[in-house]
Amino acid sequence: MSETETQTSTKTRWKLTIEYDGGNFCGWQRQDGVPTVQQTVETAIRAFCQQDIVVHAAGRTDSGVHALAQVAHFDLDYGARDLSGFVLLKAINAHMRPAPVSITHAEIVAPDFHARFDAHNKLYRYRILQRPAFPALEKGRMWHIKRALDVDAMHEGAQYLVGKHDFTSFRDSQCQAKSPIRTMDQINVTKHVYDDYGGVEIRIEAQAQSFLHHQIRNIAGTLVMVGDGKWAPIDVQKALAQKDRAAAGPTSPPDGLYLVRIDYPSLGV
Amino acid sequence: MSETETQTSTKTRWKLTIEYDGGNFCGWQRQDGVPTVQQTVETAIRAFCQQDIVVHAAGRTDSGVHALAQVAHFDLDYGARDLSGFVLLKAINAHMRPAPVSITHAEIVAPDFHARFDAHNKLYRYRILQRPAFPALEKGRMWHIKRALDVDAMHEGAQYLVGKHDFTSFRDSQCQAKSPIRTMDQINVTKHVYDDYGGVEIRIEAQAQSFLHHQIRNIAGTLVMVGDGKWAPIDVQKALAQKDRAAAGPTSPPDGLYLVRIDYPSLGV
Repeated sequence: MSETETQTSTKTRWKLTIEYDGGNFCGWQRQDGVPTVQQTVETAIRAFCQQDIVVHAAGRTDSGVHALAQVAHFDLDYGARDLSGFVLLKAINAHMRPAPVSITHAEIVAPDFHARFDAHNKLYRYRILQRPAFPALEKGRMWHIKRALDVDAMHEGAQYLVGKHDFTSFRDSQCQAKSPIRTMDQINVTKHVYDDYGGVEIRIEAQAQSFLHHQIRNIAGTLVMVGDGKWAPIDVQKALAQKDRAAAGPTSPPDGLYLVRIDYPSLGV
Repeated sequence: MSETETQTSTKTRWKLTIEYDGGNFCGWQRQDGVPTVQQTVETAIRAFCQQDIVVHAAGRTDSGVHALAQVAHFDLDYGARDLSGFVLLKAINAHMRPAPVSITHAEIVAPDFHARFDAHNKLYRYRILQRPAFPALEKGRMWHIKRALDVDAMHEGAQYLVGKHDFTSFRDSQCQAKSPIRTMDQINVTKHVYDDYGGVEIRIEAQAQSFLHHQIRNIAGTLVMVGDGKWAPIDVQKALAQKDRAAAGPTSPPDGLYLVRIDYPSLGV
């Protein structure tokens, strides 16, 4: 490059919305020797732009956990070339096929946007299939429970978790968060018709600014204790008050868990 | 067996409702050397009851086509032993794991019940995902189309197919039905929100007593020509009138097709 030529390094920060089938990956976070969503997305972007980028997600989902709309950001040095979100999305997706990961939206954001720190709310959904027959079409996508659950009791028990609490009882022993205090904005347990023979889909939807490791799966496992009648709804409050992981129910399987939506009020969403 | 002992051969006819992910099978019908749904179900029943049974389905779905509620019947010689539908369902399902096929209902029916001949109505659904990004979670479960389709025009075009017609234009050249005449009870094209970024699910739902081979997939391929604006809605009527397969649109992929429901008025359903 001659002295008269100057190249402006124009880093652009991109926000990606990502859908994936978690059953095919050992979670979001890059690890050696196993397929992860982060690695799949990063490899595709590197193949497309030939730059050593890193993709930062709003939250690291565990192995087997799905996302309808994970959010992540990364910086692309694309000089003066004009790149639309639509073109970027198409290029990354083309490089990811046939992996079950898809960029559903891509947009340029402010250079200081941070997928994790700017997230105002996260909405997770946990799906339970209640019927004798295991799921054929939704295999790996729901927690299959054969016995009938009391959904009203589950919803009642869940309400004790709303508000600011020490969630130690629902936190994995490996959780690396500094504080076990979280504020649950809302949590609802609802019942939906699944098939014509009494099959029921139970959905637990939980919204908070952030969650602890395994928090929703531990809550789901506990609410099923209530649904089974082994616990009264008030026992959820007692488990919470004990601040002891052993006081709450078991961890439910990852199959039923979906990261549904992340809100960024600074972006108008 | 001594002369004083007599064994009554008590054949019981069972009706099964079956859910499956067609992407894993070369269709319903048993074929040598390839996995089929019929073979999977029959093998499980034989393993359970040690009898050489044959399972007769209401309709033979093609490779890649899914079922929420296929119906089939078979005869079980179970002597005096009492067998409930619930126990039969559990036993068959246990023998089918981990194949993505599941018996969702089992009941005893009259000895002359026939899954195919007694079917009064079949409801099929064809799902199209309209958005730039390919489906990650619904991979193999929808027809992915990137461009925007005019759903109102598709619905309008579909209405020309309602009623009794010669469906030669929408019938596969390999179709073995004696007559190309079928009566379409109803066909509706509807639009549903799929994601937060403008992704749309388009559903074509068609109900008739019976369908010709590839009829719905050929209709879906034709209605997408209308949705694309290449054809006017009235062109569907013109294609129908020509009674020539070449006059209609292409065959759509099996991924989006689901056998949703079969009605048997004689059983009260």
